[in-house]
Amino acid sequence: MNYRTIMYTVGKTVALEGALLLIPMVIALVYNEPLSPFLISTFLCVLVGAVLRALGNKSSERLFTREGYAIVSLSWIALSALGALPFYLSGSIPSYIDAFFESVSGFTTTGASILSDVTALGRGMLFWRSFTHWIGGMGVLVFILAIAERNPNRSINIMKAEMPGSKVDKLKPKAKNTAIILYKIYCVMTLLEIVLLLVGGMPLYDSVVHALGTAGTGGFGIYNDSLGGFSPYLQYIIAIFMVLFAVNFSMYYLLISGRARAILRSNEFRWFLGIVGIATAIILVANQSMYHSMEENFRMAFFQVASIVSTTGYSTCNFNDWPEISKIVLFVLMFIGGCEGSTAGGLKVSRVMILTNSVRNELRHSLHPSMISAVRVSGKNVSQATITGICSYLALYLLTGVVALIVISCDTMNFETNVTAVVSCLNNIGPGFGGVGPASNFAAYSDISKVVLSMTMLLGRLEIYPIILTFTAERTWN
Amino acid sequence: MNYRTIMYTVGKTVALEGALLLIPMVIALVYNEPLSPFLISTFLCVLVGAVLRALGNKSSERLFTREGYAIVSLSWIALSALGALPFYLSGSIPSYIDAFFESVSGFTTTGASILSDVTALGRGMLFWRSFTHWIGGMGVLVFILAIAERNPNRSINIMKAEMPGSKVDKLKPKAKNTAIILYKIYCVMTLLEIVLLLVGGMPLYDSVVHALGTAGTGGFGIYNDSLGGFSPYLQYIIAIFMVLFAVNFSMYYLLISGRARAILRSNEFRWFLGIVGIATAIILVANQSMYHSMEENFRMAFFQVASIVSTTGYSTCNFNDWPEISKIVLFVLMFIGGCEGSTAGGLKVSRVMILTNSVRNELRHSLHPSMISAVRVSGKNVSQATITGICSYLALYLLTGVVALIVISCDTMNFETNVTAVVSCLNNIGPGFGGVGPASNFAAYSDISKVVLSMTMLLGRLEIYPIILTFTAERTWN
Repeated sequence: MNYRTIMYTVGKTVALEGALLLIPMVIALVYNEPLSPFLISTFLCVLVGAVLRALGNKSSERLFTREGYAIVSLSWIALSALGALPFYLSGSIPSYIDAFFESVSGFTTTGASILSDVTALGRGMLFWRSFTHWIGGMGVLVFILAIAERNPNRSINIMKAEMPGSKVDKLKPKAKNTAIILYKIYCVMTLLEIVLLLVGGMPLYDSVVHALGTAGTGGFGIYNDSLGGFSPYLQYIIAIFMVLFAVNFSMYYLLISGRARAILRSNEFRWFLGIVGIATAIILVANQSMYHSMEENFRMAFFQVASIVSTTGYSTCNFNDWPEISKIVLFVLMFIGGCEGSTAGGLKVSRVMILTNSVRNELRHSLHPSMISAVRVSGKNVSQATITGICSYLALYLLTGVVALIVISCDTMNFETNVTAVVSCLNNIGPGFGGVGPASNFAAYSDISKVVLSMTMLLGRLEIYPIILTFTAERTWN
Repeated sequence: MNYRTIMYTVGKTVALEGALLLIPMVIALVYNEPLSPFLISTFLCVLVGAVLRALGNKSSERLFTREGYAIVSLSWIALSALGALPFYLSGSIPSYIDAFFESVSGFTTTGASILSDVTALGRGMLFWRSFTHWIGGMGVLVFILAIAERNPNRSINIMKAEMPGSKVDKLKPKAKNTAIILYKIYCVMTLLEIVLLLVGGMPLYDSVVHALGTAGTGGFGIYNDSLGGFSPYLQYIIAIFMVLFAVNFSMYYLLISGRARAILRSNEFRWFLGIVGIATAIILVANQSMYHSMEENFRMAFFQVASIVSTTGYSTCNFNDWPEISKIVLFVLMFIGGCEGSTAGGLKVSRVMILTNSVRNELRHSLHPSMISAVRVSGKNVSQATITGICSYLALYLLTGVVALIVISCDTMNFETNVTAVVSCLNNIGPGFGGVGPASNFAAYSDISKVVLSMTMLLGRLEIYPIILTFTAERTWN
């Protein structure tokens, strides 16, 4: 491993975090809040970044996969470890483990919290908390591109094929162009949401913070009842944007390049809308006696479906009190997650779709063993290697969940709480049911469990492989 | 589809059931209990069997896969539907849906019950209840052979390779020979268990009934506290036999043919023992303050691990009261199940093992994308088709569980109860946690849920494909 290059790159990322910490500091200044937590954090980020860059060096050599994975994993961990400092230094979160959990939850766009009273935090601190979601979401977009570039055959990301100049340009400029387009879409959509929330009468600060949380599909709110106190208009806007941020971003490229019809041909997009529609319909029927009006019932059901399937985790009501059937529908959505190529977590609709098609293929094969047929998605054959890759991922994903579940079950929480805590963290959602429901939080877990759940969020966010390959010797797998 | 051959074969199976019903009738006679429920049931079995055989005809044509699947699925359903008659006709179980659930639970070797007081049933009735486990277990052995024969390339069953004359004999006689050896092993082991239980002072009737339940890895008991009242010796004997019946039966063939060393070379066997050992050790530590002595603690832990991993479902204590960590370990064991080629249910150790190796292979591949390496088990390469097959099965298995979970969640039971009820039925175990824990039963579910859970047991027992392909039009998959 080229450790020096890894250190250099992580150092650069950390220094950038120091710069980004100046934004919440400005907000703290505006609201007349203490600046020192941000100042000290910035200083420490710059210092750590400088040390890492001095110890490492910029290499022009080609990086191996494992080095790439190490850069991603260690950057995310370093961002989280240093990003926890403002919470800890300000005394907002007195335990560093808790502050780290909150920070990991932010950068992994999970939104699981250990805070029972978020309103006790200052404006600057709450901004930083939501800003970590937005930074994390942007990080995910970079990460997706890097993966797609490294494993062109295995990538199930349709973005590549749809992106401009995929045949004309060379690889490097293409990836860079694609990244710029992705960032533009991300920023424009965030701005659009801010404007629409402002139109609905939401104060500027609230609009920005909630748009940051939506864009990263994170879910940190600034009120103790999450979005329960917002007007129906604001709830609808946020619900719609949660869905939009969980859609494959290449769809927006198709839209702006005037190929809207191609969007409708995307199997993943159609499945995603279908899943949202069916889930909303079931919950609508199951909850019919819970709300005063059809409109309120629909709004609650649609909002919660959008929030969970996009792995955001905002809530407009305590869905832990919903009928079991509605909760189970949400539970299933937790596993599915959003589309490939978005900021959402979960298994991803494309994987679920390919697995389902693979089952169909297997059923056909068992009827006609001599017949060989391929799994097709959006009119293209999916290679056997891709299917095996997805299956191995599914197995590893389940295995990761099982290990995390066994460890956190050493605490005294009940079955429902433990199972949904792991599912929520692994899929980067935020709330679960029971003791980690939307009206509760993760504070009751022991420090060991909080560290394990933090690792689970990181594993889920980076799709497991990078973290495992970073922290195991190469010979383990040979 | 050759409907007439299907009818003929199912008719023959049902008539055989009529004959088997005479055994519990003899027992009812000995204990001076009413004979009419058995007599009428036998009559109806013979009648239905005769009608089906008259409508159908014996065909010498080669059967297609789908016809084979239809015979297996419909036989199991017909056996269960008619096997429920004695319970219903005697008034032991007043609702036919409940009686059907109990009967399906018997023939699928699940052991989930709707009875809150089993001691209220007569001796003949309790014998029939446990006898269905034994019949079901034997049926599973036939089924495994049929599958292995039909899909030689896909079979992950090492039995074939190990069985005698696999190179000399022709296919048909080989399958028949293998079947006879399997039956002999099954019967001899059942007899051995009866003898060892008798030695421990258990009455003959009890010994036979519990041996039948162990052999089929079923789990219906005849006391309300399952095996809680038995002596430590008897509990150990049953625990050991539960493990033995969950081992690939080809191991016993190796043993009797003097190739004991080959058993130790079997990866699946080693994994299975490892899983039992690790699970017992974790529970032993977690439960240390629950029991009076180390011996009692070990016995409870080992018995429950053996019971769950073999998917039997007997209990010596109410493990629903154990610490969460112990319950979660049992929960994970529920999914794994026993070895391929045994009467146990679950995903099977071999599948878990191949999936784990496939993950390892994928991790290696992601480090060295150009390197192609195969998954190896017991020193042999596992084909890509086998891995894809296992993955599709895993996906279908999860999908089946999700659908069942959504339907039964319409009832008012809680999350823990619903999740473990489905997991328990799908893996043919019996008890779950919460409202379906070892001290409770499935009676509180609605009729719809009972039917869905019955179907779940059948799907789990026949490994899903046969049932789906029987009840869907062929064109669905083309």
